[in-house]
Amino acid sequence: MQNDKHSANIKDVAALAQVSTATVSRFLNGNLNRMSDATAERVRVAIDKLKYVPNSAARQMTTKSSKLIALIVANTDDYFSTELFKGVSSILESNGYIGTMLDSDSDLQREKNLLAAVNSHTFDGLILQPFSTISTIENIMRRSAPIVIVDRETPQSPWPQVVTNNFDAAREATAYFVKQGFSHFIVLTSDLSAATNRRERYRGILAAATNVDVLEVSEASYNHRDIHEKLIQLLTKTNERTVIFALKERWILEFVPNLVLQGYLDNVKATATGFADTAMSRRLEPKMKLISQNPFLLGASAAEVMVQALKDGGEQNDDVIVVPAKFK
Amino acid sequence: MQNDKHSANIKDVAALAQVSTATVSRFLNGNLNRMSDATAERVRVAIDKLKYVPNSAARQMTTKSSKLIALIVANTDDYFSTELFKGVSSILESNGYIGTMLDSDSDLQREKNLLAAVNSHTFDGLILQPFSTISTIENIMRRSAPIVIVDRETPQSPWPQVVTNNFDAAREATAYFVKQGFSHFIVLTSDLSAATNRRERYRGILAAATNVDVLEVSEASYNHRDIHEKLIQLLTKTNERTVIFALKERWILEFVPNLVLQGYLDNVKATATGFADTAMSRRLEPKMKLISQNPFLLGASAAEVMVQALKDGGEQNDDVIVVPAKFK
Repeated sequence: MQNDKHSANIKDVAALAQVSTATVSRFLNGNLNRMSDATAERVRVAIDKLKYVPNSAARQMTTKSSKLIALIVANTDDYFSTELFKGVSSILESNGYIGTMLDSDSDLQREKNLLAAVNSHTFDGLILQPFSTISTIENIMRRSAPIVIVDRETPQSPWPQVVTNNFDAAREATAYFVKQGFSHFIVLTSDLSAATNRRERYRGILAAATNVDVLEVSEASYNHRDIHEKLIQLLTKTNERTVIFALKERWILEFVPNLVLQGYLDNVKATATGFADTAMSRRLEPKMKLISQNPFLLGASAAEVMVQALKDGGEQNDDVIVVPAKFK
Repeated sequence: MQNDKHSANIKDVAALAQVSTATVSRFLNGNLNRMSDATAERVRVAIDKLKYVPNSAARQMTTKSSKLIALIVANTDDYFSTELFKGVSSILESNGYIGTMLDSDSDLQREKNLLAAVNSHTFDGLILQPFSTISTIENIMRRSAPIVIVDRETPQSPWPQVVTNNFDAAREATAYFVKQGFSHFIVLTSDLSAATNRRERYRGILAAATNVDVLEVSEASYNHRDIHEKLIQLLTKTNERTVIFALKERWILEFVPNLVLQGYLDNVKATATGFADTAMSRRLEPKMKLISQNPFLLGASAAEVMVQALKDGGEQNDDVIVVPAKFK
């Protein structure tokens, strides 16, 4: 610890403002709610007079803690991501941590860059909805900060995971529709090869149905009209009763309304279902049965696992916590 | 600079791995794309053997730069926020910075806490969609990091602002509908008093119409059915032709589909319009005319202003940059 030279420190500020160092600290941390305006003003003036600069980098070298947790999500355009973030933030906040969200934008190279940024900065921990393999993550994350995997079941993960029952939920929903007399399924999904949760959902559908088409939509760029027309082609190519099965809510919100308006989804010849993160899809067509996952709860659970790891000094196990989705 | 004692430094790692220090540095920063797997593995082994820890906090004390920019948004559940973030991230990324998003969740106290967290950490800059007043922000942000205000016109801001032409766009759209024979307007909005952009939009509507009802929806908690029924009451209370004017896209997505399905919005007796951030609203009912703002471009512009300020060593002006919304 050098620089205890002649530059002002927190005690100088407290003395000049005639308050305790704890009050100065509260001021610096923005906890102004239990402080009178007059007190805050005295502290502010003292800081200005003494040109006191709280050196957070220096503080971090001492405490080795920034209280910042990084959440890297696959695509902030999905309500899944934003609800997840809200769940993460809410638990972190009540434990004195701050959640910040980074967006890999469904791009593997970008995810690697973000991992490197998290690694080389002062984040206390990382919650990750990963595309990368375990070994890539291990290679980039050189620090000992705790990691929690969320949403994507990742075999051989050395870190805890918080996931949905993707396979079972998809199989259960498919079996329901088969029982209702639907035999043709159109799986509407982002690139299947890119993410384990999508593959698990697809496997669940295949476990209960045989006539299954797949329509992949590129997250980075797709033509709405093209996909719409391909869906109509697939819907009308057979006399079998058909289910459009969206593997994520965004594809329900994007493509189901037009199909309903144009009369393609009458719940008799054809219907739609999928994984939903909000109440929005349900309101599009109240008769639709959907698989409701709870991204807020997934995020909150991941944050709880993170907070516990931080309390335990970074000790982690490889538990898998399942937050079940509900078909209704 | 102390600790050049006996702990390994980057040169030791480079020597052991038989690569340049630049290669080690690239490895540490995760730039693995121009590096063979064998080289990366040698560096990894050398780092492990020497127990070399790149001390980012120490590095930050030297460079005073974390390359992280904080974006505080009002509510990540709005596509506005996520598109804004994507615009911010894209420009930051191409300039060697990383964008991280924090969510004030439309809560003033939470925004203050986030400002305090940004202030006391090593972010290089802050882009803010603010609820707080200028003086509150100034009181909390004690550091000299650049600030850019986005979306919310903030009079007397000492920092540059990137905003939409809220007043003009709302007035122009209202005048269009008045000309078409619509005379009754229902403004569907979050708490009007909380944000300047909402008030500007409301003022724009009042500048072109006289029979204006306001229906405020609480972002934190609202009953979908209640709002739906209040909308129907307001729609049917008069024989005048009515426009539901949503001040943000989320309220279009939430309430317009049901009203269309139930026949309330026939584009003759009644129609809907509003500020939209994505193509989604337009697809709900292709006949709707909407005010398309471009949150991606707003974010990209704000990030460009930020990058310029960082290049200029933190020098900032109070320019107001307007990214116009388009009524079509």
